[in-house]
Amino acid sequence: MAYEIITSVQNPLVKRLHQLLDKKGREEQGRFLVEGAHLVEEALKSGAHVVTVLYDQERNLDPACQRALANHPQDTQVIAASAAVLAKLSETKSPQGIVAEVNKTANEWDEWVNKLSDQDDTLLLFLDEIQDPGNLGTILRTAEAAGVDGVVLGKGSVDIYNGKVVRATMGAMFRLPLFMRELGQAAEEWKRQGGRVLVSSLAQDSVAYDQAEYSGKIALVIGNEGRGVSKEMLACADQFVHIPLYGKAESLNAAVAAGIFVYEAQRNRRR
Amino acid sequence: MAYEIITSVQNPLVKRLHQLLDKKGREEQGRFLVEGAHLVEEALKSGAHVVTVLYDQERNLDPACQRALANHPQDTQVIAASAAVLAKLSETKSPQGIVAEVNKTANEWDEWVNKLSDQDDTLLLFLDEIQDPGNLGTILRTAEAAGVDGVVLGKGSVDIYNGKVVRATMGAMFRLPLFMRELGQAAEEWKRQGGRVLVSSLAQDSVAYDQAEYSGKIALVIGNEGRGVSKEMLACADQFVHIPLYGKAESLNAAVAAGIFVYEAQRNRRR
Repeated sequence: MAYEIITSVQNPLVKRLHQLLDKKGREEQGRFLVEGAHLVEEALKSGAHVVTVLYDQERNLDPACQRALANHPQDTQVIAASAAVLAKLSETKSPQGIVAEVNKTANEWDEWVNKLSDQDDTLLLFLDEIQDPGNLGTILRTAEAAGVDGVVLGKGSVDIYNGKVVRATMGAMFRLPLFMRELGQAAEEWKRQGGRVLVSSLAQDSVAYDQAEYSGKIALVIGNEGRGVSKEMLACADQFVHIPLYGKAESLNAAVAAGIFVYEAQRNRRR
Repeated sequence: MAYEIITSVQNPLVKRLHQLLDKKGREEQGRFLVEGAHLVEEALKSGAHVVTVLYDQERNLDPACQRALANHPQDTQVIAASAAVLAKLSETKSPQGIVAEVNKTANEWDEWVNKLSDQDDTLLLFLDEIQDPGNLGTILRTAEAAGVDGVVLGKGSVDIYNGKVVRATMGAMFRLPLFMRELGQAAEEWKRQGGRVLVSSLAQDSVAYDQAEYSGKIALVIGNEGRGVSKEMLACADQFVHIPLYGKAESLNAAVAAGIFVYEAQRNRRR
């Protein structure tokens, strides 16, 4: 750990970190920002490489983060900074006084899926162009809570390293195997390993969510907020599943629907 | 219907409507604003009194809203305005080109609860200090979709007429009996009518959500995002119910938890 204090928002490190608030900067640098003691602690405790931690010198370094830093296997630069610097790097109304710069870590889908054996009762979530950052983050939080084994994100999704997504996951994104992969291809490889695909859809032969066959290796597909699941993924479906609407609502919120769907799958698999 | 065109953001009507973007203005006037063709249409079709509709003269009045206006039983002022006026009254990034001013309508809890008979299999939701507007709106949307018979909002909740809440309900708030009532009192009156109270809580004797007794007259209580259910409501509980967490997450998002809870109640009641 190296100690220095940064007080200028013009400091080159601050300028570089500030670029991580935009998708372009995150893609160029291959890193993203995490704000708040709880998320920084979760990042440090996960397998992710935390490159830099910046904290408000007036508020001191959070004790839980200090402990997590002591056990973090990678080299992390820990730097005190002024409140103005932390405010510059904050996306929230009240800056949390701590941010961390984290390396994006890619999970290798091909490797992972090819290692699955016939005995594995894996439960996956395929996310098909989820657009709202709060929805995506909440779905990841729910998936981790429900004990999902992995999440595959297709190309049209909102950037998972967007600050709103990261905050809405409440740290779950650091504990969940995430794969970025073209969904149609991933589904094909999944099926080749004996996996089944259950697609959330109101198609004619769709069964009620509590009547679906959830045993074995299954992937649940959740579609875009407005358009639902893409044609490509509808074509991959082994079964269409829907959540009944008893009122006059035309649909459920995507994160709520994902939660009801994945919890019903687990309820069935565990009984 | 009276026709005129408002082009100045200084127009007294525009100034008065602008006050409805704040809670204080909504309380003083007893009205609230609804933005976007879909929500305005839902408001017009519901029993609510729509006092004024303002639409962007360059975009014309939405045809579905025109039809709903023709059937709306109350007197509604329909006024064309400039894009600048609509932008002034908009809370969204891209103004929708139409807003409506709607009278708050209070449902009378006492009257409603006293009319319940022994045979009624009513399903209620009690919301105990939900703070996030998106969560509250999404819970109302889910409740309506799940066929809940009514929602009781306690005192500490975020203002239900907040624009973010209204938008997140996707119109469900106009189709759902809503009661504003001190929750402890409402629970007492509910129990006097033979209703049971199921509280979402991790208390020691809490049962898994799929093991609870959901038959008859029941109220499900959903607590605050951080603190959970208040002591007062814990004390009213006939049964504590929880959703198991299989990962390392400490909790679920409040709207997701409400969705899983209420859909499981309906699944049980309908089989």
